[in-house]
Amino acid sequence: MKFVIQRNQLIASVQDVMKAISSRTAIPILTGIKIDARNHGITLTGSDSDISIESYIPAEEEEMVYVEEITEGSIVLQAKYFSEIVRKLPEQTVEIEADSNLQVTIRSGKAEFNLNGQDAEEYPHLPKLQTDNSLELPTAVLKSMIKQTVFAVSTMETRPILTGVNVTLKDNKLLFTATDSHRLAVREMNIETVNMEEINVVIPGKSLNELNKILDDTDENVEISVTNNQVLFRAKHLNFLSRILDGNYPETSRLIPDQSKTTIHVKTKELLNTIDRASLLAKEEHNNVVRLTTKGNDLVEIIGNSPEIGKVTEEIAVSSIEGEELKISFSSKYMMDALKAMEADEVKIDFTGAMRPFIIRPEHDGSILQLILPVRTY
Amino acid sequence: MKFVIQRNQLIASVQDVMKAISSRTAIPILTGIKIDARNHGITLTGSDSDISIESYIPAEEEEMVYVEEITEGSIVLQAKYFSEIVRKLPEQTVEIEADSNLQVTIRSGKAEFNLNGQDAEEYPHLPKLQTDNSLELPTAVLKSMIKQTVFAVSTMETRPILTGVNVTLKDNKLLFTATDSHRLAVREMNIETVNMEEINVVIPGKSLNELNKILDDTDENVEISVTNNQVLFRAKHLNFLSRILDGNYPETSRLIPDQSKTTIHVKTKELLNTIDRASLLAKEEHNNVVRLTTKGNDLVEIIGNSPEIGKVTEEIAVSSIEGEELKISFSSKYMMDALKAMEADEVKIDFTGAMRPFIIRPEHDGSILQLILPVRTY
Repeated sequence: MKFVIQRNQLIASVQDVMKAISSRTAIPILTGIKIDARNHGITLTGSDSDISIESYIPAEEEEMVYVEEITEGSIVLQAKYFSEIVRKLPEQTVEIEADSNLQVTIRSGKAEFNLNGQDAEEYPHLPKLQTDNSLELPTAVLKSMIKQTVFAVSTMETRPILTGVNVTLKDNKLLFTATDSHRLAVREMNIETVNMEEINVVIPGKSLNELNKILDDTDENVEISVTNNQVLFRAKHLNFLSRILDGNYPETSRLIPDQSKTTIHVKTKELLNTIDRASLLAKEEHNNVVRLTTKGNDLVEIIGNSPEIGKVTEEIAVSSIEGEELKISFSSKYMMDALKAMEADEVKIDFTGAMRPFIIRPEHDGSILQLILPVRTY
Repeated sequence: MKFVIQRNQLIASVQDVMKAISSRTAIPILTGIKIDARNHGITLTGSDSDISIESYIPAEEEEMVYVEEITEGSIVLQAKYFSEIVRKLPEQTVEIEADSNLQVTIRSGKAEFNLNGQDAEEYPHLPKLQTDNSLELPTAVLKSMIKQTVFAVSTMETRPILTGVNVTLKDNKLLFTATDSHRLAVREMNIETVNMEEINVVIPGKSLNELNKILDDTDENVEISVTNNQVLFRAKHLNFLSRILDGNYPETSRLIPDQSKTTIHVKTKELLNTIDRASLLAKEEHNNVVRLTTKGNDLVEIIGNSPEIGKVTEEIAVSSIEGEELKISFSSKYMMDALKAMEADEVKIDFTGAMRPFIIRPEHDGSILQLILPVRTY
């Protein structure tokens, strides 16, 4: 194997595949990056067996030459050393060559690195996914759907299914749902042309977080394909493969109340900042719980209280309050997470009493819903 | 105690004094910030008993009003909560009021915080230093003298005196010296007018690192005063007090060889980058050791080698090599630290054989000297 490659392209690809590589792995070869040189281009692969990432650098694209002097072949290099080396190379081009004894030479300018490689035949084969049963989404839409739901997955392994985001497609409606059983985040999206049967899978939250870090903010589409136990996200020059969680995702739609006793309309940022301040004195003893009380004259009072440290009280002027008076306590963290996901200047909050879950939605957008269970404090 | 203060001034002062506050302290009240309100301004104090920092906010300065409606008094507030609160206040002005029961109210806009304070009488009294026996230095010079030496202090508590920087003043020459017994960093500075007797103290490296973080890059001077067991750095509106280490600092000047068998002149940045690359494969098994070998034609070869991982070789063209041929091994970390301290485009390295300490100096500046002991590898 041999090729000469532009350093910047190599650095970007190595950074992408590194996101799948863990230093704590039961399979030693997975601490390496697999390099496949073909005449059309170079593919790098990293995997921790839950997530696998392939990044492709074409030999030529749009009249730019990225890789030259290619002799086909494959090798696996220690990811930790290889990634540091490529970042610190002195020149813009790099020559990488592997001999038949798995000895690898990396040359750039007057610097020459000799590394011990590993046999690419020993690297696990990634499953090939059939891609004609697939769904396409603009990258920005996918990233936003992930961002608005993934924070609500459970971090506890007691119910593993809740550590994932439930992704369903039915009747041309794509739905992302996440819950840790104290709160629920739902985002839906109408898909006009679908080239795919119904889907219903649970994707680990960790996978989606890593995917969101890798996906560039481009106008290009991402293609999503699903099999029984794997999901593939295919972007330009990038394949992101994740396992799917086993088990049935709970039915969450019945949790959502269909009536409201008190409705508050409020500026998202103002409520967020007020809750943030109240949470400063609600952190330790009270599990981040703050209290919201409706007042007359479209005022809402937010209180955070930790008797040993102190108390914070703030009144916030809201756009309107409709319905019954209300006094309710809830996790400031959950409320802040939900408000940050809104992407809207103003939100509507529907309460059905101090002991019932309440719903936060953008003022003029039904596609996002955040539900939070209150906390019983008295 | 009561006053109304500009939030931005308060935030900056709180940030400064926080640098002295540790959450792990044997004296519980030192987890707090002391606030002293006097008619002329507000003083904040933080301390971990090794370092104490006082930051002063004048009521008025250069026709700007920073503090108003002052009723004199003092209080101690939990640093962790107070610092988070001031950062998140909604308005540009803040009212702080303490009643006779040590209850403190912080008001900004519609937000009101009630905090439990502690009695300022219980806060340790900082020693008052006599300041007519003092030395003045431009802030930039002091920061650079610290930066060029403090990295070389020992991090081992086996010889506590080596964890500090030896600061001496004699015959109008100010000298900063640091060594961990494997390397030595020396910076000197001629002081024209000195208003001070000789000094010879050892200041903890940790204190100087914190001081360097706090000192702004201004044109103002810093005033240094020393007593038996404390040193005070006084900048504008800032007092930084540190304890001094007990014990005699070793005589280091005899370590510096007065002759040279091989001299290399080389571009600082080029040598630094080459050593950095060589260190990538010298990290684990060989304690960062790299090897330097002089070649003909003004070439120097740098090698890093870890048999299990690989080897890196790089030739670097130097400006000139004078004297004997040389093959020498040393810590790449020490060499990189020394080169980063140089502040010069080109350096001169004087060797007196593979087993003797060598000296790095800027090409045209005798005020900085870095000495490194080589490593025996064969």
